[in-house]
Amino acid sequence: MSSKKQLIQPRTLKGFRDFLPAAMIPREGLIDTAKGVYRSFGFSPIDTPSLEYTEVLLGKGGAESDKQMYRFTDHGGRDVGMRFDLTVPFARFAAQHIGTLGTPFKRYHVGPVWRGENTQRGRYREFIQCDFDTIGTTSAASDVEAALVIHDLFRAIGFERFTIRINDRRLLTGLLETLDLVEQQAAVLRVLDKLDKAGAEAVAAELRDGVGLAEPQVRAVLEFAQLKGGPGELLDAIEPLVSGADAGVAGHRGLSGLFEAVTAAGVDPARIKLDPSIARGLDYYTGAIFETFLDDLPGIGSCCSGGRYDDLATLYTKQDLPGVGASLGVDRLLAAMEELGMVEAQSAPCPVFIPMLEDDRLGDYLALAAELRGAGIGVELYPEPRKLGAQLKYADRRGFAIAVIAGSHEFDSGSCQVKDLRAKHGVEVPRNELIGRVRDVL
Amino acid sequence: MSSKKQLIQPRTLKGFRDFLPAAMIPREGLIDTAKGVYRSFGFSPIDTPSLEYTEVLLGKGGAESDKQMYRFTDHGGRDVGMRFDLTVPFARFAAQHIGTLGTPFKRYHVGPVWRGENTQRGRYREFIQCDFDTIGTTSAASDVEAALVIHDLFRAIGFERFTIRINDRRLLTGLLETLDLVEQQAAVLRVLDKLDKAGAEAVAAELRDGVGLAEPQVRAVLEFAQLKGGPGELLDAIEPLVSGADAGVAGHRGLSGLFEAVTAAGVDPARIKLDPSIARGLDYYTGAIFETFLDDLPGIGSCCSGGRYDDLATLYTKQDLPGVGASLGVDRLLAAMEELGMVEAQSAPCPVFIPMLEDDRLGDYLALAAELRGAGIGVELYPEPRKLGAQLKYADRRGFAIAVIAGSHEFDSGSCQVKDLRAKHGVEVPRNELIGRVRDVL
Repeated sequence: MSSKKQLIQPRTLKGFRDFLPAAMIPREGLIDTAKGVYRSFGFSPIDTPSLEYTEVLLGKGGAESDKQMYRFTDHGGRDVGMRFDLTVPFARFAAQHIGTLGTPFKRYHVGPVWRGENTQRGRYREFIQCDFDTIGTTSAASDVEAALVIHDLFRAIGFERFTIRINDRRLLTGLLETLDLVEQQAAVLRVLDKLDKAGAEAVAAELRDGVGLAEPQVRAVLEFAQLKGGPGELLDAIEPLVSGADAGVAGHRGLSGLFEAVTAAGVDPARIKLDPSIARGLDYYTGAIFETFLDDLPGIGSCCSGGRYDDLATLYTKQDLPGVGASLGVDRLLAAMEELGMVEAQSAPCPVFIPMLEDDRLGDYLALAAELRGAGIGVELYPEPRKLGAQLKYADRRGFAIAVIAGSHEFDSGSCQVKDLRAKHGVEVPRNELIGRVRDVL
Repeated sequence: MSSKKQLIQPRTLKGFRDFLPAAMIPREGLIDTAKGVYRSFGFSPIDTPSLEYTEVLLGKGGAESDKQMYRFTDHGGRDVGMRFDLTVPFARFAAQHIGTLGTPFKRYHVGPVWRGENTQRGRYREFIQCDFDTIGTTSAASDVEAALVIHDLFRAIGFERFTIRINDRRLLTGLLETLDLVEQQAAVLRVLDKLDKAGAEAVAAELRDGVGLAEPQVRAVLEFAQLKGGPGELLDAIEPLVSGADAGVAGHRGLSGLFEAVTAAGVDPARIKLDPSIARGLDYYTGAIFETFLDDLPGIGSCCSGGRYDDLATLYTKQDLPGVGASLGVDRLLAAMEELGMVEAQSAPCPVFIPMLEDDRLGDYLALAAELRGAGIGVELYPEPRKLGAQLKYADRRGFAIAVIAGSHEFDSGSCQVKDLRAKHGVEVPRNELIGRVRDVL
């Protein structure tokens, strides 16, 4: 061992990520967009602790969530866990505060969650969830609104070609009731959820051999799930298949109303599909269910999913808290946006760069920067006098749009050069035309 | 034991908090404002994992940080800890990525940190930090810029009456060198840092009895720290006291330039003071240091503090990474804003509320809401038909500014009522004047 100080290797834990500005700027942009859309529908932000008593978290997300939970004993000897989603903490939160909050209550919540997952599947152990929910009402208007939020959100992000696939759990319940498969419902839905990825044959085999369905039952379930057509056509085809059960009738009525209302709200019908195959693996959905696919990258799966549930917080309170909500897949969407060329490779946090040519004119540079900021235009001033070429190279690498260039001569004569860094073109302007010229370029 | 399912008590861990919308809306607003100001100076967002190898975190924040760290063994048997600040992870991040990022590098980072603190002191175990730093340059312009960021930030938040107190560690170093107290510097600074809270007598006693200073040394240190006056006056008074040491001369020159430049950049001189008593307890500052006080609530302490340091990442890399930065005290500032009446008691996430009077006109209500949103005006539509009075009470409680009221009659006649919920005054307007009228009220 050397007696010199050993350097500590700078590294992150497996499954955890650093976000450099080029990744973080679009990330913040996406999250800000989501928050803006959620707010525009009256959803309010909340936050909950990263750590909870394990008794609050355990057994709420299934055996896998329990196993993956980061769990330890804190300084006070408490058994604590890091939240693995935002839904379980929201259930605890709602049970605790609903008296203060009143119903209906509409919240959004954006925050990190942690799962000690197998990273070989390309999963991360820390990731952002970005959820919205309306609780305390069973109204159909809230279901419709959930679809509208998703629609407005994808448009606000910049997508034109996407499809919200909608189904209603009650149609499936009605069908299974008609087929005398009430007991096997949860198992059937879990298998059905794989239809898109595994294909009809694999699903048929698993329904038959795994769940124990008879051949006619398998055929009926698959025929239902594979129905194709416009919403009107499909609703007509589905009606006779589910009308023998109350749940089926209610689901049919719910979906009919939903498609009518979403269209009345101005959504392009091409962006919204009834898809009887959508089951959502999770047990707690009881009504409308949503998945959202990018038409140009359907293979990456649903980028925003959710649905209606009967009761959010049954484990913590006797008060019924029915609701509807969905969760935006931030990581998946950012990956898709990158693949589709929707994210600029370089992105500066502000548009204008000012190189510093002479440091004895620092006051003049600061006043120049302040003038632009005063007009709402962000500016980075290079902190040291270096060769102009080196500073412009820095500006290029960072992705600034414009350089405003000045030295003693320009400061004394009341002028400056405005250079469009993309078009590589500059013009000299009098100082009082600076703001206007910069705005023109932007 | 009853055989019925036992409810789990919904509760949070001691020292952890739920944020309801009334607390979260101003919180998000403050953080968005900070991000906006940071960006307007060219700082880019980054993020780092909540969990790090403990070898990265241990021993970097002092013995207390180590003791308070949430530390455990993960699923892979790794010794891991939750970050207790954003500075140590940034040091690790910088060492790891500076080759990719290049210098100078300007980043901001907003995120939760965790400390198993004694909650009796009113501290929380999870709180947000909101930092900005420029690394990779020793330029004086970066020090000036740090002061300007703080200034613009407090103005953007809505403060008019605040003071940025500035000092330079090198003045203190120079003074202590002149007094032959180089060895005792760290101890003297830690004691001096208490001057504001503990008073001169207590500090004198501790310098004498705790650190072992002779009476003339104690007097000289306290005289220096208690110098009062405008920056020009103070700089004149300080010069002879520190001119015997290189550090003192450099500090004096640095501060002179800083005050000159900040004034040239347009900062009201009343908002910026030279305060020789500011020492900042932390060892790593080596140049300019900043604290920010609210003139109307000076007792709550500094709401934004920082300074220049010689080397950020010396434990992880041999590359010198000098820098300057500061950290906004989000919790402290929000508490102050509440005390000063700057936070509205009720706050809706959007301005307009639409009560639902008839649910068979859902499509019309949705189209009405979509029309307002299309004009950039956020709208919450109540999800169920209830008595108008009950719905307006809900709107009042949530803090909406305007209700847009319509039923079949209004939908059929192409009109609606726009009600100012604060002035309790409504007018009937034709539908095509709706947007204009709502904008007038807002």
